[in-house]
Amino acid sequence: MLISFEGIDGCGKTTQIMLLKERLIRERIPVEVLREPGGTELSEMIRSLLLNPDVQMNPVTELLLFSAARAELVAERVQPLLQQKVIVILDRFYDSTVAYQGFGRGSLPIKEIHHLNKIASQNIEPDATFFLDLDVDTALQRRMSQSGAHDRMELAGGPFYERVRDGFLYLSKTHPRFVKLDANLPAETIHHQIWQRVSGMIH
Amino acid sequence: MLISFEGIDGCGKTTQIMLLKERLIRERIPVEVLREPGGTELSEMIRSLLLNPDVQMNPVTELLLFSAARAELVAERVQPLLQQKVIVILDRFYDSTVAYQGFGRGSLPIKEIHHLNKIASQNIEPDATFFLDLDVDTALQRRMSQSGAHDRMELAGGPFYERVRDGFLYLSKTHPRFVKLDANLPAETIHHQIWQRVSGMIH
Repeated sequence: MLISFEGIDGCGKTTQIMLLKERLIRERIPVEVLREPGGTELSEMIRSLLLNPDVQMNPVTELLLFSAARAELVAERVQPLLQQKVIVILDRFYDSTVAYQGFGRGSLPIKEIHHLNKIASQNIEPDATFFLDLDVDTALQRRMSQSGAHDRMELAGGPFYERVRDGFLYLSKTHPRFVKLDANLPAETIHHQIWQRVSGMIH
Repeated sequence: MLISFEGIDGCGKTTQIMLLKERLIRERIPVEVLREPGGTELSEMIRSLLLNPDVQMNPVTELLLFSAARAELVAERVQPLLQQKVIVILDRFYDSTVAYQGFGRGSLPIKEIHHLNKIASQNIEPDATFFLDLDVDTALQRRMSQSGAHDRMELAGGPFYERVRDGFLYLSKTHPRFVKLDANLPAETIHHQIWQRVSGMIH
């Protein structure tokens, strides 16, 4: 089973992924969490190029680098884990590419991005995609309250994030695998909603 | 004007590019030589991932990384130079992707690779492509006689290079911009053939 988490930066994905992972471990269900871009040695190297605030790049280059990191992650980690019946939780997957590089950057027409996503992901599709929806201002405030430096993607401005959120909203309306959740709710409440869905899929 | 040089490793591209560049400089014609993958700071970083013999990668990842490096090179260097009426000489371009990642690795159907090449190159096409054709054994002997370590692409075996050569031969038959040259001839003879063509295009 493949589960992805999506949403703009600051929406609380990391917390929910941790809660779901812990819950699955308590249930003695094999689980692995992988992040995009990343998850393999090469993909992490590509990640460091993508998120480096000092590296400037063309929107199409960015799109292709995300796709390259994804191709490696899917081939080397996701596919083998799924074959071993491990539940794979992805912290972002190709929907982020539609939202960020398609709606956000306008790199290429959405149809082209879907096509590229299929190439990079060997046509695999999540069984469920949890979309933590949050307004851009609240997400920004949450990010600003976090310590540490901000990466290249996070440094894009508010209008960019509005377009990204629109992208996720569009996807959630057009893809039945999307589960849209209100990220303003308390973390435990959201976790309960996610667990209801996941436990229904397992049992 | 955009001119690309293609052929398997060891075919003598570097020598011919140097000779053509020197000739253009003597004629006081603005010229810039760029190599693929590479030619920008980011593309050189991607190059170092692609050619590192210690890095293993999936064929689709390799294809997408070459495409990412190309997208950056075309947007940041090739297009601006062409607008300034500089003759751009490319040491490899997307035909290498068809030959190496398509015919050589079998990463994706050739039609898909052509499609990806168009995305990465913003639809630009060389005015002439000089293909230095050489049999695989002679090319290997030339490479082995060169000092220094060999990169990840060069370490692929003979059957791989046979497929790559077949790819270039296929392209040279289907694309009128290809100028196929016998790379067994003396360097000066080949240069003369190239210069005949280029001077005809300039004047």
